[in-house]
Amino acid sequence: MSQEIFLGKPCDMHVHLRDGVMCQLVTPTVAAGGITTAYVMPNLTPPITTVDQVQKYYKELQELSPETQFLMSMYLNASTTAESVKEAAESGIVYGYKLYPAGVTTNSSQGVDLSTPEGLESLFPVFEALQKYNMILNLHGEVPPDNEGAVNVLNAEPLFLPQLRLLHKSFPLLRIVLEHCTTKLAVDTVNAINIEDKELGKALTVAGSITAHHLWITIDDWAGCPVNFCKPVAKTAADRSALISAAISGKPWFFLGSDSAPHPTNPAKLGPLKIAAGVFTQPYILSYIAEVFEKANALDKLKGFVTDIPTKFYEITPAKGEKCVYVVKSENPVFIKDTLSDPNGKFNVIPFRAGEPCNWNIVYK
Amino acid sequence: MSQEIFLGKPCDMHVHLRDGVMCQLVTPTVAAGGITTAYVMPNLTPPITTVDQVQKYYKELQELSPETQFLMSMYLNASTTAESVKEAAESGIVYGYKLYPAGVTTNSSQGVDLSTPEGLESLFPVFEALQKYNMILNLHGEVPPDNEGAVNVLNAEPLFLPQLRLLHKSFPLLRIVLEHCTTKLAVDTVNAINIEDKELGKALTVAGSITAHHLWITIDDWAGCPVNFCKPVAKTAADRSALISAAISGKPWFFLGSDSAPHPTNPAKLGPLKIAAGVFTQPYILSYIAEVFEKANALDKLKGFVTDIPTKFYEITPAKGEKCVYVVKSENPVFIKDTLSDPNGKFNVIPFRAGEPCNWNIVYK
Repeated sequence: MSQEIFLGKPCDMHVHLRDGVMCQLVTPTVAAGGITTAYVMPNLTPPITTVDQVQKYYKELQELSPETQFLMSMYLNASTTAESVKEAAESGIVYGYKLYPAGVTTNSSQGVDLSTPEGLESLFPVFEALQKYNMILNLHGEVPPDNEGAVNVLNAEPLFLPQLRLLHKSFPLLRIVLEHCTTKLAVDTVNAINIEDKELGKALTVAGSITAHHLWITIDDWAGCPVNFCKPVAKTAADRSALISAAISGKPWFFLGSDSAPHPTNPAKLGPLKIAAGVFTQPYILSYIAEVFEKANALDKLKGFVTDIPTKFYEITPAKGEKCVYVVKSENPVFIKDTLSDPNGKFNVIPFRAGEPCNWNIVYK
Repeated sequence: MSQEIFLGKPCDMHVHLRDGVMCQLVTPTVAAGGITTAYVMPNLTPPITTVDQVQKYYKELQELSPETQFLMSMYLNASTTAESVKEAAESGIVYGYKLYPAGVTTNSSQGVDLSTPEGLESLFPVFEALQKYNMILNLHGEVPPDNEGAVNVLNAEPLFLPQLRLLHKSFPLLRIVLEHCTTKLAVDTVNAINIEDKELGKALTVAGSITAHHLWITIDDWAGCPVNFCKPVAKTAADRSALISAAISGKPWFFLGSDSAPHPTNPAKLGPLKIAAGVFTQPYILSYIAEVFEKANALDKLKGFVTDIPTKFYEITPAKGEKCVYVVKSENPVFIKDTLSDPNGKFNVIPFRAGEPCNWNIVYK
């Protein structure tokens, strides 16, 4: 008899749907992977910074996948003002702003220079507006590389954590998500902030999102393996354990944000000189996570992580549609596809754990 | 006026010259890069384990580059015995044995299982014979990955260091080289062993070799860049500083072993799934190092690092040939080639820092 778990209307609070042909290929995989609500990242080229752009993008996505609820975000850069935040809020489709420190990952060159305290403080009017309009601030929580080499891919996230604390202290009512936590220190920091706030009777406003692939891989899995290379990079086994513990904790400040980031295998994931950062998990996102939760004997916490906790933190109405999502354990594992190809044969994308067996399938009913 | 530094007869105590077409391509680059004596690694497929094999390989190399002095090594695996060490010693061309823990790098699947103390101890008769015949033990100093993830690419070298100490304690007269040191801890350990030995009036028998690329790069330089990926991986800026300090220290236990490891760009350095470990530095090896020593204001220590110290530790006669090697600082930098190609167009190899300027050139006179 197969095991079946009711998940309701699962959310993925960090997806990259790109534009053009790639967008057409990956947008339908959101629903195929069992996700009914997707929070869409704005790092296109050019980045999404105006209401016109976000409305056009929203329409494109809806046409590609009418059954999916898309929550849109805007790209926070030096051109963002309190006024533009107000305008975005009034559009009714924008839920938050994504802040990238300049130079940390794919298409982040237009991000904000956070290398000085002044860089962050120059944005205070924007944060003030986000707080006022009850929008989310999504943080790519890494400091950029420095010239002296004191910052590296391993400590870039830990070194950002003081800035998270500073932000929260300055804007205690602003809802902040530390995206794609990869370190024990990030988990500990988000926990500590919430425990302190709880003791002081403050509202929950700081959360951490966790990807599927960081529950699976460590540094050894991307060293020499371009498809597993992403930013922030996967760290050690101890960090991975901390992430798994957070994901299965049931704490109302940890939830799924897959950071599924498709790149065309050729040329982006081929060497020899420069590999694009990003792991593509969208089509199998719940399958990967169910397997981790099963191994951790925590399947009872799965619905919280992917549905209840993000729905509550983002203060959203679950996606419409009659059917709900279940993950079903299969006696005969399905093997993850080696590639997903654009129907016109222009390019392909390799999913995470390509060719590996997958015991958990998605069913809508 | 150009600056010129006399280096005499420089040695590279760790080179990979491969076989077949690759061997024909890279063997002449030893002399072209300014090296007169090269200690040749035995990890071919199949590995060099018999005197017949090593004699054949030696002859091939000599035909390809008659001006180079090749010091040959044998692959230490489970088939190695005290008797085979004696035979190798008597061949007159074998200077040492390379020990790879199984599974740590390119062609190391036939290495020794060192995951248990018994694994190391099973080789004690071999080490005894190496000591007796005054041969070198060259160590790839990393423990293999474990199933629990306690070992990773960052700590694999530090975790090996207790085994270095155990070996030295058990065979105090055996000359051991910890190859391609990459961590501050490895540098500190080799220093500590030698300081202790010196205080006790013991002979110098434990050395560490250092590559050129580990004096240049850190983890951020190979994350997402296949041509810079090697094992042991480059670590942090603090580790790199420790390696530079060791290289310029003039201490008689640190010298050059480039671990120059050519791989055909296609397919070995292309993704998307698996990248071969190895950085190719041979054609420009002294140029890379001269630049590092120049920046560190230590050009007066260059000859020690590449010539005097390895010649003395290996107890060798400098290479024959009338001409000596100089590095000359050029007013107009030469740019490092983008690739080295096999004349038949079968493949190419990308050198380290391809396309970058290089201020120091090699002159024989």
